[in-house]
Amino acid sequence: MASLKSLFGAESIAVIGASKSPGKVGHNVLKNMIESGYRGRLVPINPKESEILGLKVYPSVTAAVADGKIEAVVVTIPAKAVVPVIEECGRVGVRYAVVITAGFREVGAEGKAREQELVEVARRYGVRIVGPNCLGIIDTHTPMNASFAPLLPARGNIAFISQSGAFGAAILDWAQENNVGFSKFVSLGNKADLNEVDFIEDAAEDENTKVILCYLEDIKDGQRFLEVAWAASRKKPILILKAGRSEAGTRAASSHTGALAGNDRAYDLAFLQTGVVRVETMQECFDLATSFVSQKLPRGRRVVLVSNAGGPGIIATDAIERMGLAMARLEQSTVEKLRSLLPPEAAVLNPVDVLGDAPPSRYEAALQVVGEDPNVDAVLVLVTPQAGTDPVGIAEVVKKFHAAHPEITVMGSMVGGTLVSEGIKRLLDAGIPCFVFPERAVASIQGMVRYSEAQKAAGARVNFDAIRVNRERVEEIFRQVRADGRTTLLGVEAAQAAAAYGVTVAPAGLAHSAEQAVTLAEEFGYPVVLKIASPKIVHKTDVGGVRLKLDSAEKVRAAYEEIMRNCAPYLGENDRYGVEVQKMMPAGRELIIGMARDPVFGPMLMFGLGGIYVNLLKDVSFRLVNGLREGDIHNMVRETKAYTLLKGFRGEKPADIAAIEEMLLRVACLVRDFPEIKEMDINPLFAYEEGKGAVALDVKISLAASPVADEATRNGEAGASGQIAAESQSRAGN
Amino acid sequence: MASLKSLFGAESIAVIGASKSPGKVGHNVLKNMIESGYRGRLVPINPKESEILGLKVYPSVTAAVADGKIEAVVVTIPAKAVVPVIEECGRVGVRYAVVITAGFREVGAEGKAREQELVEVARRYGVRIVGPNCLGIIDTHTPMNASFAPLLPARGNIAFISQSGAFGAAILDWAQENNVGFSKFVSLGNKADLNEVDFIEDAAEDENTKVILCYLEDIKDGQRFLEVAWAASRKKPILILKAGRSEAGTRAASSHTGALAGNDRAYDLAFLQTGVVRVETMQECFDLATSFVSQKLPRGRRVVLVSNAGGPGIIATDAIERMGLAMARLEQSTVEKLRSLLPPEAAVLNPVDVLGDAPPSRYEAALQVVGEDPNVDAVLVLVTPQAGTDPVGIAEVVKKFHAAHPEITVMGSMVGGTLVSEGIKRLLDAGIPCFVFPERAVASIQGMVRYSEAQKAAGARVNFDAIRVNRERVEEIFRQVRADGRTTLLGVEAAQAAAAYGVTVAPAGLAHSAEQAVTLAEEFGYPVVLKIASPKIVHKTDVGGVRLKLDSAEKVRAAYEEIMRNCAPYLGENDRYGVEVQKMMPAGRELIIGMARDPVFGPMLMFGLGGIYVNLLKDVSFRLVNGLREGDIHNMVRETKAYTLLKGFRGEKPADIAAIEEMLLRVACLVRDFPEIKEMDINPLFAYEEGKGAVALDVKISLAASPVADEATRNGEAGASGQIAAESQSRAGN
Repeated sequence: MASLKSLFGAESIAVIGASKSPGKVGHNVLKNMIESGYRGRLVPINPKESEILGLKVYPSVTAAVADGKIEAVVVTIPAKAVVPVIEECGRVGVRYAVVITAGFREVGAEGKAREQELVEVARRYGVRIVGPNCLGIIDTHTPMNASFAPLLPARGNIAFISQSGAFGAAILDWAQENNVGFSKFVSLGNKADLNEVDFIEDAAEDENTKVILCYLEDIKDGQRFLEVAWAASRKKPILILKAGRSEAGTRAASSHTGALAGNDRAYDLAFLQTGVVRVETMQECFDLATSFVSQKLPRGRRVVLVSNAGGPGIIATDAIERMGLAMARLEQSTVEKLRSLLPPEAAVLNPVDVLGDAPPSRYEAALQVVGEDPNVDAVLVLVTPQAGTDPVGIAEVVKKFHAAHPEITVMGSMVGGTLVSEGIKRLLDAGIPCFVFPERAVASIQGMVRYSEAQKAAGARVNFDAIRVNRERVEEIFRQVRADGRTTLLGVEAAQAAAAYGVTVAPAGLAHSAEQAVTLAEEFGYPVVLKIASPKIVHKTDVGGVRLKLDSAEKVRAAYEEIMRNCAPYLGENDRYGVEVQKMMPAGRELIIGMARDPVFGPMLMFGLGGIYVNLLKDVSFRLVNGLREGDIHNMVRETKAYTLLKGFRGEKPADIAAIEEMLLRVACLVRDFPEIKEMDINPLFAYEEGKGAVALDVKISLAASPVADEATRNGEAGASGQIAAESQSRAGN
Repeated sequence: MASLKSLFGAESIAVIGASKSPGKVGHNVLKNMIESGYRGRLVPINPKESEILGLKVYPSVTAAVADGKIEAVVVTIPAKAVVPVIEECGRVGVRYAVVITAGFREVGAEGKAREQELVEVARRYGVRIVGPNCLGIIDTHTPMNASFAPLLPARGNIAFISQSGAFGAAILDWAQENNVGFSKFVSLGNKADLNEVDFIEDAAEDENTKVILCYLEDIKDGQRFLEVAWAASRKKPILILKAGRSEAGTRAASSHTGALAGNDRAYDLAFLQTGVVRVETMQECFDLATSFVSQKLPRGRRVVLVSNAGGPGIIATDAIERMGLAMARLEQSTVEKLRSLLPPEAAVLNPVDVLGDAPPSRYEAALQVVGEDPNVDAVLVLVTPQAGTDPVGIAEVVKKFHAAHPEITVMGSMVGGTLVSEGIKRLLDAGIPCFVFPERAVASIQGMVRYSEAQKAAGARVNFDAIRVNRERVEEIFRQVRADGRTTLLGVEAAQAAAAYGVTVAPAGLAHSAEQAVTLAEEFGYPVVLKIASPKIVHKTDVGGVRLKLDSAEKVRAAYEEIMRNCAPYLGENDRYGVEVQKMMPAGRELIIGMARDPVFGPMLMFGLGGIYVNLLKDVSFRLVNGLREGDIHNMVRETKAYTLLKGFRGEKPADIAAIEEMLLRVACLVRDFPEIKEMDINPLFAYEEGKGAVALDVKISLAASPVADEATRNGEAGASGQIAAESQSRAGN
């Protein structure tokens, strides 16, 4: 898409519905635009006025254009009047419309139709829409404040994109009190046209933005998000507070946005696979954003604590370990130098305790020494106000340290009230995050490390096109299945489809007579398994439709007849698919591969331990197939407890993990190439010893009602299989 | 112990080492005492002065006592002078000494000896000591401030007991700025005599204290803590921030306090089993304490949100579910009433969205309606400042609601800065907790619910004395083992000891000849198992020391000879214990029962899934035997995934869970009665179908080197078995 630079940097803006009455949105927006210091052409539009706030008023956009170009408009007129005005804007070449007006999708059927119409008109004329039903947008660097927010935020480097206008406004108020500045503020509103993805893409390119912060309740276009966020997060950190994590939260979000909620797990994966940092609380959101803006990324996760008290040092140590950071192990020479510089009772291992009576100079000495240690990625300076403590003096030495060691992430925690407030202020003013309680500092360092490690680990996208597959064969199988009026594949068909994509499957075929069964058995080699082939009979064993361990022609023949006899009562005229003959494979470690579709992000691949423990342990890992990176499949195997078994548990030889990964990749490729596959699973997959491969014993595939499956999935019709089913069904579609 | 009322309410206090020089501790303490408004007799002691701060100075405590009783002293003189002064105090009848002076255990060997001497002298004369190396103590209701803290905290109802003086002082500073008041403040210092347990016990009786808040780095007397905290938490909430949760934190705490750290898991259990609420962060600590002080306990976990914005409502909903609370399901009549009172676009399910333009009256209407709903235990009122929002007005209606419904826990969250600050203040002043971000409010409600549910669930202590056991038999077995110069029991001996306490074990005996083996086998019934009996041979199978499934006399005979032949090379002259003959039991579900000793809290019982998955799954639960309550064993079985298997997984019949619980109880009883049991485990325990019991297949018991085992355990010599071993060894004793 085109950059939104010409929106945020528009050189001429009209406020449609500008009003003389203070308190009215059309007044506040115009006033905000003026007070923001906007330097472009600013035009109030109102057929009944001639001058507002000292500006000449035009009766219409058309009239205004007669005197010069209008690049963007802010719309504050009643809902019913919006569509014709947008049409007019389109005709006269306006490129952007920020529609603040409410009364669209959020108010029910009539509003929904109106929003539909708005989008159609806008598309027809190439006008891009922000909102409707939003607070507006702000760019503090342009500057421009095309919103009715009560405050212009301080200039800064955080782009804040909020799906909740109220939350956005509240945060602007909070930010002013907490000295947090923004580069841009975007209230997304109903996201009828431009959505979070567009603004993330734009902010990634914006040189005034160092970190992108989003409050989202849903994501509109999962596929595009996976592309854009992946590319954007390589340039700068993206933090997302995605509401609706819990079931009740999803329900609340869904009823609030009117959108079909995706599975929250799919959101987790989408963020993981794009390097987005997901934050859980509002506090964390802003603590982390300000840390990213002011500090360099830590080179690693090793933190050193310099404290004048034991207790808070231990609390911070606990927090460091709890959050997955590490206490830096100092070099012997560092320890010795500390020992020589600090009083004898000081603790010189990490945490470094400079003691309760430490003057700033003692902090300074300790910081200088640890700053030279190559094992230190971040420093947290802890201060408690004791007799003689000088928080301001300590703040000054911390600032000096930061200037001397910009490569080390540094934060402060000054525990107290009035005694430390000036010290805290000094650090904040110098761009060094400082908190009253140390846990928030640790959480901020951890968030930065998460981002930084995700960037280091991020591999290229998997190149599915390089995988050799027999696509035609799968198309043919699906065609036959549909021609037969089915959407569920027989086991043999599913295995053949999987095999066409390179999945190793147990040799199998369909027999329509006892003799055919024997022929197949002889071909595969004994022993074999016979199973009734029927899409109607789900629990084949219960009806006597399965016979195992058949090791002679005689037994195969007898089993065939017996199965047909047992199953006859359950089979209709058109269900006579015969009996599946499958080579019995030696037992391996039992695993599962599965796939279900998320309505937002598409196919979600699952891997886990098979056998009777599956449901008990829920030992499964997931990845989105769209957005799959090199290394993702490697990691998803290693995230499970099954991995402990696979790599050789209690003296067993390791399993053929490479073969398992190959299977996962090929299943991913298959479900990606065929969106009409609604569900697929392989259960069990037997994994053998290293070098001996793995084999799919039972493959299940079911297709969407129509071959254009993606649409069906989007409308929430798609079910899901096995493990994933319960998950998505309970969360989605409420 | 005696109440500490006469310490906090002492009618006469001497400050030993009172000084004229501002800045000196001896000056500050005296000044603090005067400024606190202390109404008793206050006596500065200093041989070189005659008057300080307007008070008559005595040269010694003895001289002061000549003019009237001295109940307590505060000691601020140099470390070397402390012991003689305490002796003098003891002689003249002083009952308490708050020893602020540092230079004891915390400074190494010399200090440790001095502290030892201090304790001995104090014990001799019956003087109770606070500290040494502490900040002092405060009681705001007496009032008295026997500390050198720079501030007297506001009067309130939180008793704050801190093992870190620096943290304590910092919090007093923080509290003043945040309007948090205290009833008592205790700086524990080195805890040479009085420790956290004494102060918890005292605060539980104190009518001015509504909640007890502790910052602790260790607990001195685990056994007494389990008794006292259990009784105290039934009277009022106890919140503990126990530092040293992580391995590195434990190390830091250990090196800081000089105490041997217990296993952090044991602390978790100790808190669980006494109803103590463990908090993780400093913020949570105080948020929760102030909530307890100001609000009634929620009757349940069902929360309703009333918000003027969707986004923060969803975020709060997520937090509610994440923290294990529940969104209240409103009655149909409530929903209808809301529907009739609120605008049509308002959301009337929970969260209730009163919309962005809501005036206070709309909040009031919504609150009145939800307040009548029987499904509402707590209300969280969310406010974002939008056009026309009146946070102060809303605060007033929330106050009215609270007055009308004191039985409903109510909290506020006003998201913003200056626009909401007055609203927040109004609520805080009225004793209604209010936070900028809603997550802290939810965390506070959750902490209150945790306490309240723990109190409801708390059963009586298990009455071990009511369990019939054969104690003499166990004593006899242990005597024999020790007489044999061993500390590890043979399998047969361990099984017999367990059986004497009512544990069902597989029939087994020792055979010293093939014929004896046959006799035993005939007695038990075939098939049997033969195992070499030797404390020396650990891996019996590896040396050919085990033979299974022996179903005839002939096979038993042959197996006996074979085992003796195989093992001969490994057996010394004194290791000829023969061969164990055990009846082979039918396979059941494999479980484990284990026990290891924690240096602080004593025996820790373990239960979990057995078999090859044990180490993979770490599916185990624990309880402390001391402090075991009715219901604890019931719960520890249900906390494991094994429980899912036991209650009948995939159509299996349920296992005999009652029998398993009985086994756990009996093992608990055995290890409690015999502190010399260092480690014990039963692996596997076979559990059969309901009504068919469970049986211990292999029992292992090892004894402490000396029968007075508790001492050994305390000194950290005790190892631990199986699962627990790795855990305690990695955490403890650093």
